[in-house]
Amino acid sequence: MSIFEDKNFLLGSEKAAYYYETYAKNLPIIDYHCHLEAKEIYEDIGFTNLTELWLTYDHYKWRLMRAAGVEEKYITGNASDKDKFIKWCEVCGRAIGNPLYHWSNLELNRYFGITEPLSEKNALDIWYRAMDALKDDRITARKFIQKSNVKLICTTNDPVEDLAYHSALAADSSFDVKVLPTFRPDPAFDIRKDSFIEYIATLSEVSGVQINSFDSLVKALLNRIDFFAFNGCVLADHGMTEIFFDPQYTDLDADKALKRRLNKSRILEEEACAFRTRLMAAVCKKYCELGWTVQIHYSCLRDANSVILNKIGVNAGCDSIASGFDSITPLARMFDYLNSNSILPRMIIYSLNPNDNILIDTLIGSFQEHIKREPTKLDEIRFSDELEDVDKTLDRIKLESDSLNSENNFKLPRLIHGAAWWFNDSYEGIRNHLKTTAEQGFLPSFVGMLTDSRSFLSYTRHEYFRRILCDFIGNQVATGMFPDDEEIIGKIITDICFGNAASLFDIND
Amino acid sequence: MSIFEDKNFLLGSEKAAYYYETYAKNLPIIDYHCHLEAKEIYEDIGFTNLTELWLTYDHYKWRLMRAAGVEEKYITGNASDKDKFIKWCEVCGRAIGNPLYHWSNLELNRYFGITEPLSEKNALDIWYRAMDALKDDRITARKFIQKSNVKLICTTNDPVEDLAYHSALAADSSFDVKVLPTFRPDPAFDIRKDSFIEYIATLSEVSGVQINSFDSLVKALLNRIDFFAFNGCVLADHGMTEIFFDPQYTDLDADKALKRRLNKSRILEEEACAFRTRLMAAVCKKYCELGWTVQIHYSCLRDANSVILNKIGVNAGCDSIASGFDSITPLARMFDYLNSNSILPRMIIYSLNPNDNILIDTLIGSFQEHIKREPTKLDEIRFSDELEDVDKTLDRIKLESDSLNSENNFKLPRLIHGAAWWFNDSYEGIRNHLKTTAEQGFLPSFVGMLTDSRSFLSYTRHEYFRRILCDFIGNQVATGMFPDDEEIIGKIITDICFGNAASLFDIND
Amino acid sequence: MSIFEDKNFLLGSEKAAYYYETYAKNLPIIDYHCHLEAKEIYEDIGFTNLTELWLTYDHYKWRLMRAAGVEEKYITGNASDKDKFIKWCEVCGRAIGNPLYHWSNLELNRYFGITEPLSEKNALDIWYRAMDALKDDRITARKFIQKSNVKLICTTNDPVEDLAYHSALAADSSFDVKVLPTFRPDPAFDIRKDSFIEYIATLSEVSGVQINSFDSLVKALLNRIDFFAFNGCVLADHGMTEIFFDPQYTDLDADKALKRRLNKSRILEEEACAFRTRLMAAVCKKYCELGWTVQIHYSCLRDANSVILNKIGVNAGCDSIASGFDSITPLARMFDYLNSNSILPRMIIYSLNPNDNILIDTLIGSFQEHIKREPTKLDEIRFSDELEDVDKTLDRIKLESDSLNSENNFKLPRLIHGAAWWFNDSYEGIRNHLKTTAEQGFLPSFVGMLTDSRSFLSYTRHEYFRRILCDFIGNQVATGMFPDDEEIIGKIITDICFGNAASLFDIND
Repeated sequence: MSIFEDKNFLLGSEKAAYYYETYAKNLPIIDYHCHLEAKEIYEDIGFTNLTELWLTYDHYKWRLMRAAGVEEKYITGNASDKDKFIKWCEVCGRAIGNPLYHWSNLELNRYFGITEPLSEKNALDIWYRAMDALKDDRITARKFIQKSNVKLICTTNDPVEDLAYHSALAADSSFDVKVLPTFRPDPAFDIRKDSFIEYIATLSEVSGVQINSFDSLVKALLNRIDFFAFNGCVLADHGMTEIFFDPQYTDLDADKALKRRLNKSRILEEEACAFRTRLMAAVCKKYCELGWTVQIHYSCLRDANSVILNKIGVNAGCDSIASGFDSITPLARMFDYLNSNSILPRMIIYSLNPNDNILIDTLIGSFQEHIKREPTKLDEIRFSDELEDVDKTLDRIKLESDSLNSENNFKLPRLIHGAAWWFNDSYEGIRNHLKTTAEQGFLPSFVGMLTDSRSFLSYTRHEYFRRILCDFIGNQVATGMFPDDEEIIGKIITDICFGNAASLFDIND
Repeated sequence: MSIFEDKNFLLGSEKAAYYYETYAKNLPIIDYHCHLEAKEIYEDIGFTNLTELWLTYDHYKWRLMRAAGVEEKYITGNASDKDKFIKWCEVCGRAIGNPLYHWSNLELNRYFGITEPLSEKNALDIWYRAMDALKDDRITARKFIQKSNVKLICTTNDPVEDLAYHSALAADSSFDVKVLPTFRPDPAFDIRKDSFIEYIATLSEVSGVQINSFDSLVKALLNRIDFFAFNGCVLADHGMTEIFFDPQYTDLDADKALKRRLNKSRILEEEACAFRTRLMAAVCKKYCELGWTVQIHYSCLRDANSVILNKIGVNAGCDSIASGFDSITPLARMFDYLNSNSILPRMIIYSLNPNDNILIDTLIGSFQEHIKREPTKLDEIRFSDELEDVDKTLDRIKLESDSLNSENNFKLPRLIHGAAWWFNDSYEGIRNHLKTTAEQGFLPSFVGMLTDSRSFLSYTRHEYFRRILCDFIGNQVATGMFPDDEEIIGKIITDICFGNAASLFDIND
Repeated sequence: MSIFEDKNFLLGSEKAAYYYETYAKNLPIIDYHCHLEAKEIYEDIGFTNLTELWLTYDHYKWRLMRAAGVEEKYITGNASDKDKFIKWCEVCGRAIGNPLYHWSNLELNRYFGITEPLSEKNALDIWYRAMDALKDDRITARKFIQKSNVKLICTTNDPVEDLAYHSALAADSSFDVKVLPTFRPDPAFDIRKDSFIEYIATLSEVSGVQINSFDSLVKALLNRIDFFAFNGCVLADHGMTEIFFDPQYTDLDADKALKRRLNKSRILEEEACAFRTRLMAAVCKKYCELGWTVQIHYSCLRDANSVILNKIGVNAGCDSIASGFDSITPLARMFDYLNSNSILPRMIIYSLNPNDNILIDTLIGSFQEHIKREPTKLDEIRFSDELEDVDKTLDRIKLESDSLNSENNFKLPRLIHGAAWWFNDSYEGIRNHLKTTAEQGFLPSFVGMLTDSRSFLSYTRHEYFRRILCDFIGNQVATGMFPDDEEIIGKIITDICFGNAASLFDIND
């Protein structure tokens, strides 16, 4: 029997097993941060074999294969799909202690009913059995999603995207899983990048706003935020290596920096900081008005290997944890500035550096006050030309906004430490995150897991997380550190695995 | 039965339970760092209800309530005491994995005999039972202290304080717990703060020394140190965000900086560093002469939330762990400079950042040599005008100084890594501190726990610590990592929980 | 019975005990990084007593004694050997949780058959029994090595050394343990040190190359590398506090910096960085040609205590973990530059700061691609004048180079996270390193333990490591996180404890 058939997998106490079985196992999934393509879901794409499913985009697996000494031709090169799969099995079957071992085997077990642990010994057998299961579109994108009991998927989208497939999915009554876009405006913030000027041109075109000043850039972005909101978006995402925020700067500084950059001048770090600070303040004001939640992902050193970058491109498995800067001081400044100006939206903070865990937990604890204020006045809503149904949009925005102030949601704190992310998405990483969150914050308010994935199979990461969570909570009870009050514990587990995210996104079970 | 009635709470092995019961449980408490008011002890204040005891000053609890989404009116606002208590119960009863859950329940159990775990379900029942126990001053400040078997309390005091209540307590034969002041001269070091000039004026007045130069400032502080010593003080405390120490500066640099500041000029960071370095050297010389121990608390980001700071003030639960600077290089420089000049007093080092644990443990290991030198010559003792009994003071200082060279005390190292502090005062935080101290230092020399608290109930933190310590040591034996030599282990536990601090403060069981 | 006679010491599950007994216990040792003297091995020195063996050079023990309050005369002073030993026993016998407790007792047990745990109670008895075992050279340097089943020792050597004893050992057919030098050119990189100019003069003399430019310095070093290679060296080692590498600099910058320094000018940090960057590139090119492996040791703050430095010297127990700089950015730049120029040799990276563990693991994961390229053309080999057998050298170099491309070796990644080092060489330190390596990398490729020691008894650290490794792996199986596939697990353990290092150094069991 595979360890993945053992219903107590990762559940180290009877209590843990009971809580998992009773409360966590059957909850639906809200996958509020992933990198799936709405187009592929809409088209309900099928797959031919496990290499297509597993190795085409999954740079986690590429890294592990490289670390195991596998030649690049079996990873991103022109070896056959079957040979690539066999190489993967050689590596995965020996990857003791690695989350990819668990994820891969859980996926085989839960989606294909394969009960033997994957290794080079059974590679071909599994190759053909999975191929058989996949043929004639017996398992497709939508079926993976539905089989996983997913209620909501939030994809990651550029402000210039037309969201046509999100719109089509919303109109498709045959598929009842919500697929919402996430507004990720990083290219508009990356003022020092070579591609910035071209990006601004595209944004001008798409938004219908001629961008030649800071003010017009803000107008264009707010326009796109409205467009995203019209398409159901309630979530933004900002990715960065370092946190830049310095309240000493004004919109005038930002305007000067932008104009110099649009004139193709070289921009200093301070000018870029002024620009980013003011742009962040502008979009946060808007996010607050709409009741959106904002994700901040930072401390990632991307594309460090220029040989691979030139040969294969970005997202090729050459990212790692950035270091050497202070994120806490600018984060504190940002929270304080936004809070003092009543434009601090709900935020979920993720650092790739696990040494930051306790720093983030204690910092956000300083900005959780819930003081009733006058509601922020909604700005005059501006739409891009292609929007038709203005009234409907306004209603919808109002609805989302109200729902965020409903009693259920009130319990969620304003600032949330996001789930253990990327490299930390492991047994130790998740456990460490839970321990620190519980000790330094209020664990029942944690919004739980997400896949952050490009794969249709990775919903087992929610199972992985839930097992570790129930093990952690079961252990608290088993060791006498918390009383065995099932009413309280059941509610905590349910909220973390589903309820809290559901209230963020207004989803019912 | 409450988990807090289980005598094996936190004790994961039979050995651990045996050691705790036999060696740790009944030892007296030396609480050498807290924020109690001597006045309240002298006046033996009483309490009306649990909100007064628990929620009036305890910003740890405020933070947890905010993180759980409680409105500010139930925290620091004008809701009734009972309503505040009920809100606290709603939060505390679900705070799985949080030290406040353990502390609160231990306090109810140990001081009020309440055996059910606190939750929203029994909030009112507990409210009234505690109220009943408190009425007619059945439990007062002194009774909490005496019931807890406390032998010594060191409060935290500004150099300008008159210590009238410490003096009154020393003269009060009806109360046999020593209450000593701690000399905390941070305001004299904070040369860049707005309040500095006013503080210097007060210090001039209190010390009787006209402060118009670095030399006269030192004279004024040494005067106050003598006054504190006369009142039984043997402990200083320096709090700071970053460590500043650069031996390149001279007293002349410090003098220039101070004079510029007293002339209301803006002071550069380098000038402030020169000032702080030389002032630290000056007081450390004095501390050495008197045989004092010096606590260094650093890496705290205070009052990050300016909305709360303006509305509620300092110590409002808006502090967190500072980051983004190097403490190890200046600490190494400071130790080396002071050591090279034979003016390195015994120091207890605390960083709020647990990532510093192993850095501190290995750094202090470089400055522990015990080389017999000529005793430092006592400076001419200077007193402020209000001191009368100069001879008695001199005798007393000599006595303290000798006792620090007694055989018993010789075993304590010069530099000590202080107990897991504030946010680290948790199950994981204490365990991590113990593990690193044991691996990188010499655990039997650790001076143990303190409350760091403003509450008369928080002595249960000593119990919490002792249980975790006995669990750690019991586990070493239970897993065969250390032999079951009761003589050695009993001595180690006794020393850490009581003996080492007792020898620092010349207390007998 | 001593805990060190318990065959399950540190082995927390039946699986762990079985794997240790079956796979790890009897494997030979490859000690590829230590500080033994080839001369002492060649001369097969004997010892008189345990103080000679344990306390003459072991600054780990000195630190622990100082932290326990022992006077310096019993550590590095003129107390008798017996008195020093007794003081050590007083300290060691109470050092619960400290690796020195385990190491010392394992050494007594494994080399002297002493079954009682060391403490002050049996100090004299053990003193005499060990003295008896040592007398008449019954146990000597070589016997310690052979009894420990060591196959290879790599010492640490300066480029100017003549390696006479390595050569003599190679020629000594009575001793079948390979003793190879490691090329450690730190003094040639330390351009800002006072001793640099004198060092360059010595290097000129030894290499026969007049060093008056960057080019001639490189020539001299490459000459010494050839000489080391001729003496069997396949390993370099670079130690530094911070990592310096900035690809913007050219050889011309390095040349200017060197010439200014040789003219006794003061060198700025940027000039030093230019010099170090280009010199590192130059030697890495050569290392690649020869197929050497390069160790990088960083983040050590050395000789912080100037009182001890002046009184006792370097390596006196006054080193600790450095902090306050970013190592990841320059490491990423270095890997990328060397990789882009096809001169990235196999490297083993060690940081003294355990907070860096996950940063290193994820960073090296970005540079592991195995892309077939044209083999680097061997430079024209240059020899120093004292080398005679040029042809033999060339053959040897070729052989080493080929063996590194053999199929067996191909599985090892290019970049390896070195074993938990120095202060991290502890139970928690080793476990944390294994956990992170397993989660973030590919554990089966780890090259395992080394002693890093100056002592002939410290091979028990390999046993200590192997037990912790088997406990980690056994626990994965016992908790159902990895299947109990003995074939796979046996191979993983064998490779980590012996096979991987053996393939690096071309050693057969």
